Amino acid sequence: MTDLPIIRLRPKSKPQAIRHGFPWVFADEVVTDRRTRAIEPGSFAILEDAERKPLALVTVNPNSKIIGRVMDADAEARIDGAWIAGRLSRALAMRERLYDAPFYRLVHAEADGLPGLVIDRFGDAAVMQPNAAWADRMAGEIATALAEVTGVKTVILNGQGRARGLEGLDERMEVLLGQAPEAPVEVPMNGAIYLADLMGGQKTGLFYDQRPNHAFTQGLTKGARVLDVFSHVGGFGLAALAAGAEHATCIDGSAPALGLAEGGAKAMAAETRLSITQSDAFKAMEALAEEGAQFDVVVCDPPAFAPSKPALEAGLRAYERVAKLAAPLVAPGGYLVLCSCSHAADLTAFRNVSARGIGRGGRRSQLIHTGQAGPDHPTLPQLAETGYLKALFFRLDG
Amino acid sequence: MTDLPIIRLRPKSKPQAIRHGFPWVFADEVVTDRRTRAIEPGSFAILEDAERKPLALVTVNPNSKIIGRVMDADAEARIDGAWIAGRLSRALAMRERLYDAPFYRLVHAEADGLPGLVIDRFGDAAVMQPNAAWADRMAGEIATALAEVTGVKTVILNGQGRARGLEGLDERMEVLLGQAPEAPVEVPMNGAIYLADLMGGQKTGLFYDQRPNHAFTQGLTKGARVLDVFSHVGGFGLAALAAGAEHATCIDGSAPALGLAEGGAKAMAAETRLSITQSDAFKAMEALAEEGAQFDVVVCDPPAFAPSKPALEAGLRAYERVAKLAAPLVAPGGYLVLCSCSHAADLTAFRNVSARGIGRGGRRSQLIHTGQAGPDHPTLPQLAETGYLKALFFRLDG
Repeated sequence: MTDLPIIRLRPKSKPQAIRHGFPWVFADEVVTDRRTRAIEPGSFAILEDAERKPLALVTVNPNSKIIGRVMDADAEARIDGAWIAGRLSRALAMRERLYDAPFYRLVHAEADGLPGLVIDRFGDAAVMQPNAAWADRMAGEIATALAEVTGVKTVILNGQGRARGLEGLDERMEVLLGQAPEAPVEVPMNGAIYLADLMGGQKTGLFYDQRPNHAFTQGLTKGARVLDVFSHVGGFGLAALAAGAEHATCIDGSAPALGLAEGGAKAMAAETRLSITQSDAFKAMEALAEEGAQFDVVVCDPPAFAPSKPALEAGLRAYERVAKLAAPLVAPGGYLVLCSCSHAADLTAFRNVSARGIGRGGRRSQLIHTGQAGPDHPTLPQLAETGYLKALFFRLDG
Repeated sequence: MTDLPIIRLRPKSKPQAIRHGFPWVFADEVVTDRRTRAIEPGSFAILEDAERKPLALVTVNPNSKIIGRVMDADAEARIDGAWIAGRLSRALAMRERLYDAPFYRLVHAEADGLPGLVIDRFGDAAVMQPNAAWADRMAGEIATALAEVTGVKTVILNGQGRARGLEGLDERMEVLLGQAPEAPVEVPMNGAIYLADLMGGQKTGLFYDQRPNHAFTQGLTKGARVLDVFSHVGGFGLAALAAGAEHATCIDGSAPALGLAEGGAKAMAAETRLSITQSDAFKAMEALAEEGAQFDVVVCDPPAFAPSKPALEAGLRAYERVAKLAAPLVAPGGYLVLCSCSHAADLTAFRNVSARGIGRGGRRSQLIHTGQAGPDHPTLPQLAETGYLKALFFRLDG
């Protein structure tokens, strides 16, 4: 038997959800006595139903709204290096089946059975984001298991971002294993080469989630003039160049990100076909419209305008404005790709404001494709509503 | 000026929807006097708002709930061969950009600006389904324009299916141009070869809509043992064989469809890796479970169990049962692909019953991808809710 503390569901809380795989226990669902509140954030406990039957092994964080996260449906599981290695092996098997090269999101938190833990792999290096207290505590064990299972030589802990704050975790960057790469890492994806600055945190890292949407865009961009607004390190622009675009223009507010876009284009020997503009994206689109500039394909992949529910209304207005400003920049019969990575803006809401913005921009449209994050970003069916990434591919009128 | 009849929106009907691209006018939105009721089904009229301002050129069918369908936002447009050719050219340009070979849905009704008209292209031949009265009346002009714009030699009218009944149109098959092919046509798609019997109607034709879902499945099936339940002409099974599956088993109730699956496998020189079973799919899955058979990838692509709202509840139960029967047939860590082409079952409902069925089948799952119809099946943003095809890619527990 185990000596772990016990947390118990209130009599009115339904244990069925947990039995059917729902991974979270909210603070108001459990009996919170002094003992529960004293549990060290990130430690483990047995979750029981109101009849004291064990339901699962959970990790507990009394500081979080999500007080418990299911680690294992087997309440007697022991969370150690071997257990972590088992989960990593399972995650790895799916990625190795789907991708030719070791560049992908290796672990996508709950859906990969590792609550709150995100790991991106860049060949021989991995960047982990422990966004739950247990993973922050066990970062060392995770790094060791990661090297053992995947063979990576370098493991970097990227302790930044909004999710950690919600868990009461500090911000930090740390090299857990091996050496931090001295230069940005070359990342091959869809035939393009991207540069990722692994020590730069969110700002200059790479987002694997857009991979299938880059790929779909490539089907539209052969011989095309492409505008990539909010380009970051050149996600869509470099993909278009790899697919034979005549020219790509990347607009972003961040000089370091645009520098990496240029570096990627050089690595692809495509730098003569790339222009970069450091600017506020809204202003840049207005300026292009004044010049009467048009492109065969325009992509807008802005930062999350509606990261949370209170920001939803203002966020939707911003998405509509993006669509309205971008539509006139699309040549007759050309394509407009509008993305949202906002959790709070669901697909229907985002599609509606996008269509309205296009209409207000004076154009009519067909919707030819709705893209999402790639399969290295799985979800639990029980949480699938939270699919955050949406990419709408419109064809505008001729 | 035109001498077309006029139909007028009631004072309470909002003309904004039409102005913003909504393509339908419902019978209860217009002033229906004796003159309106006397309009010949499939003829054209000017749609006016309550203030007698022209809104659009529409086609009228007083027998249909959708009394008007917008043909052109320009109320003075003239619907003739040249107009049809213009719309076909626009539809063709998008498909030629996206596909290497002339095998695709060329026209997808409203979203391609040709209300109720569906045209599938099979190389030198095209099969058109005129599911609105205007297209039935102008089938000859459409066929001529089709040959002119695309160069197809054969045009077949496939006048079958539920949609025609709603428009008050009879069932018929007719060769409008050229010669009906004597043998099934070879259709290359995702590296596989399918056989399509163009004169066989729905039963033995080919569905292009699953193309991206076949492609995604191919990423999972290299070296795999694959079970394709409700296989029809072998859509998923042959795609898996083309991607290097060790073996594919196709189960379907239709002997002619299975015959075409076998013919496709022969054309691919893959017939030794294909087994076919003519059977009720539910019974076949139960029998396989009794044997303890397991496959690396199981695909279930049943006919529409919930084609309309009254059938929704029974349909969802049937989808759940499919998931429940299929889950035990998936090897540990393998993949289960569940499809629905039911208009009435939305994505959330279908995902929920699928996840529940998998749970009742004794398995846990991750959702790695949600597929939809390909871009040769565009939608209008205003009608995007109607996206009917859903393919859920689950990975089951190890």
